[in-house]
Formats: sequence, structure tokens, C-alpha cells
Amino acid sequence: MQGISYYQDIVAAHFKSLTVRKEPKNLYDPIVYILSLGGKKLRPVLTLMAAEVFDVDCKNALAAATAVEVFHNFSLIHDDIMDDAPLRRGKETVHEKWDINTGILSGDAMLILAYQYFEEYEPKIFRELAKLFSKTALEVCEGQQYDVDFESRDDVSIPEYLKMIEYKTAVLVGAAMKMGAIVAETTTENANSIYDFGLNLGIAFQLQDDYLDAFGDPETFGKQVGGDIIENKKTYLYLKAIEFASDNEREQLLHLFSIQPSDNSEKIKSVKEIFNQTGASEATQKAIQDYTFRAFETLEKMNISVDKKAILKAFGENLMSRNV
Amino acid sequence: MQGISYYQDIVAAHFKSLTVRKEPKNLYDPIVYILSLGGKKLRPVLTLMAAEVFDVDCKNALAAATAVEVFHNFSLIHDDIMDDAPLRRGKETVHEKWDINTGILSGDAMLILAYQYFEEYEPKIFRELAKLFSKTALEVCEGQQYDVDFESRDDVSIPEYLKMIEYKTAVLVGAAMKMGAIVAETTTENANSIYDFGLNLGIAFQLQDDYLDAFGDPETFGKQVGGDIIENKKTYLYLKAIEFASDNEREQLLHLFSIQPSDNSEKIKSVKEIFNQTGASEATQKAIQDYTFRAFETLEKMNISVDKKAILKAFGENLMSRNV
Repeated sequence: MQGISYYQDIVAAHFKSLTVRKEPKNLYDPIVYILSLGGKKLRPVLTLMAAEVFDVDCKNALAAATAVEVFHNFSLIHDDIMDDAPLRRGKETVHEKWDINTGILSGDAMLILAYQYFEEYEPKIFRELAKLFSKTALEVCEGQQYDVDFESRDDVSIPEYLKMIEYKTAVLVGAAMKMGAIVAETTTENANSIYDFGLNLGIAFQLQDDYLDAFGDPETFGKQVGGDIIENKKTYLYLKAIEFASDNEREQLLHLFSIQPSDNSEKIKSVKEIFNQTGASEATQKAIQDYTFRAFETLEKMNISVDKKAILKAFGENLMSRNV
Repeated sequence: MQGISYYQDIVAAHFKSLTVRKEPKNLYDPIVYILSLGGKKLRPVLTLMAAEVFDVDCKNALAAATAVEVFHNFSLIHDDIMDDAPLRRGKETVHEKWDINTGILSGDAMLILAYQYFEEYEPKIFRELAKLFSKTALEVCEGQQYDVDFESRDDVSIPEYLKMIEYKTAVLVGAAMKMGAIVAETTTENANSIYDFGLNLGIAFQLQDDYLDAFGDPETFGKQVGGDIIENKKTYLYLKAIEFASDNEREQLLHLFSIQPSDNSEKIKSVKEIFNQTGASEATQKAIQDYTFRAFETLEKMNISVDKKAILKAFGENLMSRNV
């Protein structure tokens, strides 16, 4: 078993060698385009790593890893339409470069293509992979719907928010790893444990995303720092701040989240002060640690060598120590 | 084996008993809505009939039949967004009743749900069904893309048009029947023959749709007669008319297909005259007969009783003798 970059190289080479059908061009060109935009490809890397955790050559898991990444990119295309997002990974989104109808239809085709990659496996494994995949894909849709619903609600609870990020983001991380376990034909216990490892790490990762969006280093953070605050997004930081706030702080925060000033720097500064004063920042960092710790705890339960546990733990620590 | 209405009742009862998940409501309510709009449910009926053709209780094929119908409704939701259609089966389309984002996401969920219905089957059959389904679903997307592409092209050939309707409509009819054959675990030859039967009948059905859109009886035709002419749709009738037309007729037809008068009755009348004069109407009726005949020919090859062939043939004749 190796470090992340080893698997990233394998995934990158595999995606380069993939031949997506060519005709009709207007259906398949957007698929080739979004898959070429790069990204860290962490999900397929996790599928390959999980296969090797259970002593199977990671190349056996390449088809499943491809399905996960193609599905992830399908969800990006459709989410970008729903969010009216102009850019993805610094480039035009599919519906901007082509149009909304193209985005819808090419996305649909990618969802179907994802299932087709499982056809490389024999029936028993195929069925297990497709079943996990369908369950996960439906949860991702549900998570996206909760995210949309939450925009127009002002009574979202912390458990509801956690369920939303679990469905929208974390289940796919868990499923990516479990697919490696399924391909390796390990025990059900091991497969479920590595799912839980991925799931908890996925929640920690998303909470950290919320945190860094406000408190990340502008020099190294990829996106605009304060983007969630500008958009009045009810993140974990915001919900915790509302929970902990004094009457005065709550009133201030609700006001700040109702305005759209042309210059946002004062708004961002004030909101971050409230996040700090109320203890929301600290509570968020604690939640990140808790979920990371839960992920590491499930590692302990797994019936694998100490070396492999160490590599998975190093991967988790590396992921959670990022400040970008 | 029984007549159509027997299977329609079974399908209707089954759909009534289906419990689609409830939360989040904004994701699942549109799914319950579109499935409740009715329709003839011919595709799932064909799956059930095909199972009984090969001596298996049609109830064994209900899950596969459900997948086919749910997929068909997924494609209606997404197509209606792309066509900006206000009505479906006389009721508001999903994106009209809710919004485009809801239509996209609920459609996505239906595509995934369709795959989940196959989980009722054991691995070998599951894999065969899912594989046929993915191939078919991708072809339906390709067909839809060709249909979109053809709108802005004026050099569409008859073979291209036939491929478009084959992909957009007929492959799902063939696949619906083949799924019944797969569930019944008949020979590959039989399964392929019943696919060809459905495919050819599907093409004949779509060509007849083109024909009836212009020449159907306004008293009994469900949609507005002449709708395709009003929208300047390049149907089989139009393409054949262009092929057979004299220079003068071609010029007239191209002119008529470039205008959007407020009162369309004169336009419809003139176009229909050209369709008749050029021999396009006759050629279309001949093509319908040819594909129907091809469907019946494949029946002959099948290793099933004379009675069953007669029932399938009666179904085909019934379908093709409609004037609505």
C-alpha cells in the first residue's frame, strides 16, 4: 500500500485512457470536458486504497473508482445548473459553456455511464456494487434537496444540517471506500467499518470546508474567503452561533444575514467576530475533531495490519490538516 | 396468457401499492405526482406479457416492469423541461407545477429508483437486466440529443431520422419485452427475437404517431391535429415530402415550414396537401406496414406456441389499427 499521490497517478492515467463514446457530439463532448477539468480525484483514490487495504491489487478496483468519479461529476453538472454557478474548478460550467438542456442530458448520460462501469465485475460483485451505488446516489439527491429546502427555512436544526452534509457529501466518500472493500471481497464487518471511516471523515471534511470558508488563509484558500457569509449560507458555524448567541448577538447576526451590501468586507468581519465571540468557531473545530476521531476509532476495529491502519490514519490526518 | 387489459389492471394495482419514500417531500412528491397521471402503461404491460410468453408467472416480472415505467417517466420529466412543455397527459408538467430545479432533481432520483427495482432479482438476472437497462437508457439519451440536434439542421436524412426514433422510442419497447424474457430465463435467441419484435413495433408506432399527428381524426386524436406542422417538425412525413417533391412543391413546403402564422389552419391544410401530392403520406403508411411486418416476421422465428404468437400478433395489430 502506498501514499495518495501513487493512487492519484493511477487514476489520472486511467482517466486519460478512457474512451467515452463520441456520437452524438453534443451529448458526449460535455462529459469529456468536465472529466478533463481535473480536481483532486480523492473519491476514486479512496476506492483504490480501500482495495489494497484488503489485499487486492488496486487495479481491480479501477472500474468501480471510475463509476464513483463519473457519478460525482454528474452531480456537479446538475448542481451547478441548480445553483446557477458560472464556474467549476476555475472553468466555465457545462450549462454556461453549452446550455441548460445540454447540462441536463449530458448529466443524465453520466449517471447511466457510472452504472455501466460496474459491468466489468461478475454478477455477485456487480449486484453489491450497483446496490450500494443506487442507495448512495439517492441519498446524494436527497442531500441536495435538503440543501435547497434549507435556503428558504430559518428553523434548520444542527441534526438536520448534519444529516444534509452527510447525505450530500459524506455518503459518497463512505461508499467509495466500501466499493474497494466489495471488490476485494473482504468480510461484511470490514466493509462496513471502512464505510464508517469514510463517512465520518467525509462529515469532518465538509465541516472543515464550512470553517475554512470563513477562517481560511486568503493566500492559500482556493475560493473567496467569506463566500458563505456573503451568500447568507446557514452553515454549521452560523447555526452554532445562533444557538449560543445572546439576544443582542442573535439580533446582530440575523440582521447581517439579511443584508447584501455592495462591499462585503465589513459584513464578513462582523460575522466572523460573532462566530468567535459566541464560541461557534470553537464548537465547529471541536466537531471536526470529533468526527475525525470517530473515523480513527473505526479503524481500530478493523481486522487489518497495523501498517495499513497507519496509512489510512495518515491519509485522514493529511486531509484534516489542510488549510486550503 | 391474456389480453392487454388484464395486464394493465395488474400494473395499475401494483403502482397503487408502490410506496415511494416520502422525505424530503420536495424530491418525492413530484415522483408520486407524475406516476399518478395515468397513461396507458404499455411498456410495463409488454414486460409482463413477455414473461408469460416464456411460461413464467407475469408477477415475477413486476419489478422489472416497474423499472421500465419509472424510467419512462424520468425521461418525460427531463424531456418536458428541454421542450418547455406546459402539459403532460392534460396536466401541468412537473417543472411547471414546481420548478425546473425540482424537475431535474426528481428526475435524477427516478432514474436511480428504476435501477433499485431490479434489486428484487438474484445476481445473474440482476446483472443482465441492469446491463440491458443501461444500454437502453443511454440510447434514449442519445435519441433525445439527436432530436434536439435535428431541430437546427436542414439536412437530416431518412436513415438519421429512423435512427433517432429508434433510439428515442423503440429501444425501450424492445428492452421492456426483453426484460420479461430475461426474468423468464428463456434462451438468448428467444430474448433477442422478442427484443426485435418490440423494436420494430416501436418504430412502426412512432411513425404512426407522425402520421396521425397530421392525418388523425380530430374527434378522437388526443392531441391537437397538425401540432407537428405548426411547430415545423421535421417528421418522416416531412422528410419524405422533401425527398419526393418537385422543385415547386419543395419551395412551397420550405416556405410553409418557415412561417409562424397566428391562424395555422391554412398552413396545416396546405402542408397536408403537399404530403398527399408528393406521395409522402403513402410512403409513411408503407413504412408503418413494413416495420409492423418485420415485427411479425420475428415472431415466426420464436420457439413459442402458435397461441402465444397469435396473442402477440393481436397486440401488435391492435396497436397499429388505432386512430387515436
